[in-house]
Amino acid sequence: MSIDVLRGYVGKITGLNKEAMQKARDRLGILAKPPGSLGRLEDIAERLAGISGKMYYDTGKRCVIIMASDNGVYEEGVASTPQSVTLAQTINITRGLTGVSVIAKQFNTELIAVDVGVNADINNPLVINRKIRKSTWNIAKGDAMTYDEAVQALLIGIETAVEAAESGYMLLGVGEMGIANTTTSAAVLCALTGLRAEDAAGKGAGLSEESYRHKIEVIKTAISNNKPDPGDPISVMAKVGGFDIAAMAGVFIGGAYMRVPVVIDGFISMVSALAAASLAPAAKDFIFASHASYEQGFAHAAKALGLRPYLDLDMRLGEGSGCPLMFAVIDASCAMMKNMGTFSEAEINDDYVEDLRNNDRFTLQGI
Amino acid sequence: MSIDVLRGYVGKITGLNKEAMQKARDRLGILAKPPGSLGRLEDIAERLAGISGKMYYDTGKRCVIIMASDNGVYEEGVASTPQSVTLAQTINITRGLTGVSVIAKQFNTELIAVDVGVNADINNPLVINRKIRKSTWNIAKGDAMTYDEAVQALLIGIETAVEAAESGYMLLGVGEMGIANTTTSAAVLCALTGLRAEDAAGKGAGLSEESYRHKIEVIKTAISNNKPDPGDPISVMAKVGGFDIAAMAGVFIGGAYMRVPVVIDGFISMVSALAAASLAPAAKDFIFASHASYEQGFAHAAKALGLRPYLDLDMRLGEGSGCPLMFAVIDASCAMMKNMGTFSEAEINDDYVEDLRNNDRFTLQGI
Repeated sequence: MSIDVLRGYVGKITGLNKEAMQKARDRLGILAKPPGSLGRLEDIAERLAGISGKMYYDTGKRCVIIMASDNGVYEEGVASTPQSVTLAQTINITRGLTGVSVIAKQFNTELIAVDVGVNADINNPLVINRKIRKSTWNIAKGDAMTYDEAVQALLIGIETAVEAAESGYMLLGVGEMGIANTTTSAAVLCALTGLRAEDAAGKGAGLSEESYRHKIEVIKTAISNNKPDPGDPISVMAKVGGFDIAAMAGVFIGGAYMRVPVVIDGFISMVSALAAASLAPAAKDFIFASHASYEQGFAHAAKALGLRPYLDLDMRLGEGSGCPLMFAVIDASCAMMKNMGTFSEAEINDDYVEDLRNNDRFTLQGI
Repeated sequence: MSIDVLRGYVGKITGLNKEAMQKARDRLGILAKPPGSLGRLEDIAERLAGISGKMYYDTGKRCVIIMASDNGVYEEGVASTPQSVTLAQTINITRGLTGVSVIAKQFNTELIAVDVGVNADINNPLVINRKIRKSTWNIAKGDAMTYDEAVQALLIGIETAVEAAESGYMLLGVGEMGIANTTTSAAVLCALTGLRAEDAAGKGAGLSEESYRHKIEVIKTAISNNKPDPGDPISVMAKVGGFDIAAMAGVFIGGAYMRVPVVIDGFISMVSALAAASLAPAAKDFIFASHASYEQGFAHAAKALGLRPYLDLDMRLGEGSGCPLMFAVIDASCAMMKNMGTFSEAEINDDYVEDLRNNDRFTLQGI
């Protein structure tokens, strides 16, 4: 049974390597800087040691996995963008034209685009075909998908992450393309946390005030009619979510299973991470936020997950566009850990100075 | 007279190119994304157009200029680190061992270390010798320097920035090395803004509670005895500042004069930028914050200057260590501007899809 396979992955996620983290802290303590002065770069280094069991994390190849799917709730008029844009932008990601394409290229990041439910057949070898079916159903009129389909989507995400890690990708990002998926994400967030629809829903790509109010009603209707079980994240994703969200949640779980860091992008990605951590709490230690999305539900989801973003860019594009920037922050952390001098390496001798008379002894121990 | 040379630079700083900014906005509006969805990356692109007059900013070579100097107020016991560390770390910056060294290397950023007042003769060809004298005087006992020396330090900063820009550096960062310079920075911040010493001063590299209270008293004493004139930023830097702060302020002014973006690092760098903008208000448009320093006065200085950081890393190392990360954010903005597809470029045709029947027309105009 698929659910048993899923449970197998979840059950095999183990915690951070505490011994490696202690060794990382010991090294951070002898680097030539005031203790803790590199702040969250130090926290990242410690967590990477816990993830990998190694002092120096090798961040060679990195990628953003983009789950593309359509959402039946589109027919409710909750999106300001035509549904065909899901297809078009999924293609454009492979053509190097989208936001995530150009930012990823700038930061030597590869893209893995996966069709899990785009509402058209895609004839493009650069898009991985794992289509469950064309679009979910409309959550305003019933469940988005069956429970089995949600499990299937999760497994697609897990398998994609496992394959990526096995191919040598050491940093994974999680993005999406799916018109109307801020509606489904807000519904999943409300169902998981009890948050009000008014606080979870934003104006997405640019809704009018009237459409925004309708979006809130649609979310309320979906939750009250479909009755997702907050204690069962799979039920939540099946009843009010989407193939994209469930597959993205799978990437977070698969990354944790393979012990590679997985980076959140924006609102939909953050909600998927929250769903993943609800299903597999041990996965949370492998997840890193990137930027603080402008979409208003993001901050609520981040708080529920207990993660704080590193970048503040008012971005709300999605696609995984924020992940490559976070890879750069991780690179900075790794460079610090591997290449900074220790206090003893940073001691200088008389060759460097002509006049020591007016100075203290040249020790950096007290820095 | 030096002051006239300084006034000459300040007077030649002109505003942003509004026409180029409008053209940038026009292009941002036709890129294949919801309007404004790349948030502050779009704002950066617009400002870079205003700075350069060009649609596409060429960010080839970049550097961090590090002003190194000692501060006479060290003798008051306001620092937790021996004064010799200023010298040692200035040398270590050139040896590639410090925080800024390794982060800069990771982001292809060069370092320009300038000695403007280290309390020892430096025998190292990689450190530019522009020493005014060995250390400022103790601000708790009198002015840090003469008015002429403050002008001299400002001109050193301006000339360094001008030379860097003439050498082809298209992005400048501003860092420092100077034990006790969180004390002088806090004093400058208080003198410029009227902020209380309690709010401006932090614990620097790791002060005890008792030393912290003493640091606050020292700042209050310096301001009440030396009587810096808030209306004359040069007087403020001379009376309660340092050679590092004045030279850094000069870099911001010189960068603006040469029309290149100049990036702030942490607290001392932010206060220098505030002093620069007080002296040369037109310079502000060329200045970018980078990260939100953990040092408590930073947020007050950023608010006074009206700049919001892009990174949230709890860093408080200084040295210019945050600048290379901001260069990466700027790179992302430039990649977006130059390489993203427009709506018309992003339209797709039937070659990409097998089944168009269930879809809207493939136009992205409504994205």
